[in-house]
Amino acid sequence: MNECTPVLNTGLRGIQVASSKICDVLGKQGKLIYRGYSIEGLAEKASFEEICFLLLYERLPQKKELADFDQSLKNKRRVPENLFAFLRSLPQDTNPMDVLQMATPLLMQTDANAGKEGMENTLFSAENLIAGMATLTAAWDRIRNNKDPIPPDNSLNHAANFLYMLNGKKPDKETAHFFDTCLVLHAEHSFNASTFTARQVASTKAHIYASISAAIGSLSGALHGGANVRVMEMLKEIGSIDKIDGYIKDILDKGGLIMGLGHAVYQTDDPRAIILAPMSKRMGELAGDTLWYELSKELEIRGKKAFMERKQREIFCNVDFYSASLFYSMGITTDLFSPLFAMSRVSGWTAHVIEEQFAMAAPEPSLYRPGAAYVGDYCGPDECVYTEIDKR
Amino acid sequence: MNECTPVLNTGLRGIQVASSKICDVLGKQGKLIYRGYSIEGLAEKASFEEICFLLLYERLPQKKELADFDQSLKNKRRVPENLFAFLRSLPQDTNPMDVLQMATPLLMQTDANAGKEGMENTLFSAENLIAGMATLTAAWDRIRNNKDPIPPDNSLNHAANFLYMLNGKKPDKETAHFFDTCLVLHAEHSFNASTFTARQVASTKAHIYASISAAIGSLSGALHGGANVRVMEMLKEIGSIDKIDGYIKDILDKGGLIMGLGHAVYQTDDPRAIILAPMSKRMGELAGDTLWYELSKELEIRGKKAFMERKQREIFCNVDFYSASLFYSMGITTDLFSPLFAMSRVSGWTAHVIEEQFAMAAPEPSLYRPGAAYVGDYCGPDECVYTEIDKR
Repeated sequence: MNECTPVLNTGLRGIQVASSKICDVLGKQGKLIYRGYSIEGLAEKASFEEICFLLLYERLPQKKELADFDQSLKNKRRVPENLFAFLRSLPQDTNPMDVLQMATPLLMQTDANAGKEGMENTLFSAENLIAGMATLTAAWDRIRNNKDPIPPDNSLNHAANFLYMLNGKKPDKETAHFFDTCLVLHAEHSFNASTFTARQVASTKAHIYASISAAIGSLSGALHGGANVRVMEMLKEIGSIDKIDGYIKDILDKGGLIMGLGHAVYQTDDPRAIILAPMSKRMGELAGDTLWYELSKELEIRGKKAFMERKQREIFCNVDFYSASLFYSMGITTDLFSPLFAMSRVSGWTAHVIEEQFAMAAPEPSLYRPGAAYVGDYCGPDECVYTEIDKR
Repeated sequence: MNECTPVLNTGLRGIQVASSKICDVLGKQGKLIYRGYSIEGLAEKASFEEICFLLLYERLPQKKELADFDQSLKNKRRVPENLFAFLRSLPQDTNPMDVLQMATPLLMQTDANAGKEGMENTLFSAENLIAGMATLTAAWDRIRNNKDPIPPDNSLNHAANFLYMLNGKKPDKETAHFFDTCLVLHAEHSFNASTFTARQVASTKAHIYASISAAIGSLSGALHGGANVRVMEMLKEIGSIDKIDGYIKDILDKGGLIMGLGHAVYQTDDPRAIILAPMSKRMGELAGDTLWYELSKELEIRGKKAFMERKQREIFCNVDFYSASLFYSMGITTDLFSPLFAMSRVSGWTAHVIEEQFAMAAPEPSLYRPGAAYVGDYCGPDECVYTEIDKR
């Protein structure tokens, strides 16, 4: 009865749905490229603010431009007054990702042109989202712990200010730098699920706040943003080096997966994992507990070996494998891992919304409207006959 | 530098991304099928409650089942206490779709198992969303107009109770019946943009409240849920029968489109438009003003003729063409058209979330993760070189 042949493209793997100038992921070579620049150079040298500029404005800023952009973000750190009241009205055990999804559109209230068309308005909103989501994330963690939100400190950069608003004290230089690098590493990754959600919502001409809220919802899923949380849970379950082999055997016997190993795109170690591993080690040293790094390292070595022996193929670290122990060593609660991801990735999401709405290579804008193969009932050669309720 | 050949599937038209048992749309024949039943029979005989049961539980209910389901929805009409306080804290000009996107996840608070895995929990949440979104929509319209929300009246069915909560008086029988039929007609339409958004968010294992909130964001776009608003704006702009020809000429000269004519899937009149047209006429009579119906009817006839003359091809009415005048004749403000669409389509969205999470035909669950063709810079044969900021 279907009009089309049902050739399913489940999960859309390998289906190119758009052209984009934002990011390239070269799975075979293990390369991640933001607007032409490889992640290794950016992680070493660029700040998160610089990455935001690069993603939104399509090139690296000059000194004056970066200073102006930085000031513009700082001007947007304060959030609408009724936002804190809203957060205080929520049950304290509300998941931070749910809070972020609900409350992010409230940032519209400090954006006079929110929802109005035009690229300049949308860029303003993008900056407002980048600045505001950090404040919102920190504020919710304070409020749920019966503490008052801490006003932003504009002497600090985005990364350091977030840790200050979260913890109430300024971070040491090394921790602040590591956190900044984490934001750089998580900023963008082409058409992953949440980015695709953001673009899809934007493709209907919905405004950027609606798009970003939807993307947060997508990131909240256990298969997406929740992955490094599950890595951390796994590390805690293992608990000590001598239990690694048993854990690996158990999980592979059950046909399960080792969390943080394997990726839909990379066929080599994720370049971000390679950068994160030594950061995790050093952060463990700073925190006086290197157990989580050591567990991760041994699990990587033995897990890869076991996987090869069982399945005769290689498996590789993804970004979540070392970010888990790194964030944990920074003293960050596991249920904040995904919100941190979101407050970094919002830079990429907003760049994609702008590209979708203002710079699509396609001849005209159109919303994403795929097909589906109907495999349901027809109760015979024609459609089912509606029978009156008394006769069912 | 790309690893794949860039064969773009812009907008995903014609790409089948999943198999589904929920809905079939036969574009050539102009048929819309919910779980095997054609829309004509359902619109004539079934209530919205029955459609919700059909979509969620995969078959028409027996009498006792429908009564139980109806009671279950009624039990969920009351919303969390802090929801009204939240609505009162919003600026009165906040768009109802933004309010709905933000506030819908608050319905989690009256759902003890919200976010927990399992199909039974998710079905409970689906019912909670169907019942709660109606209350929320009516409450926001009251609050923004400085009126108190009206508690639900459980002697009324879903459609009549919504109009009661909105207007503060019980609707006459014919209006209530028409509104019920509108909910039936808008309940489901396969993988349109918002449904695809809901499924995509659900595919990450995000919970159903996150998925539905995201879908509302998608529906809020002018190209999607906003279409019948634009039809109404067009009808108001035309204003009288004698201005129709001039309007059509102007818009076609400019290469524009007549709102409400044309659809991505149907190659004939949308079966829902055929059902809505006489309802719009009758509702105009009831309201004592048939202008909007008459304008629509003449615009349809003359617009189709002009389109054929100019472009040598037929164009057809879509669902938005007559729903605009129908809702308007019911006295509903245009910026509530999309929320009404949402409070009907939530039945389809929730059915799709459940199918995505519990009944996918694919061998294993996977999130939607498409590709994109990178067409950005590489500054030469290899990636761009990061230059220090002072040297730019």
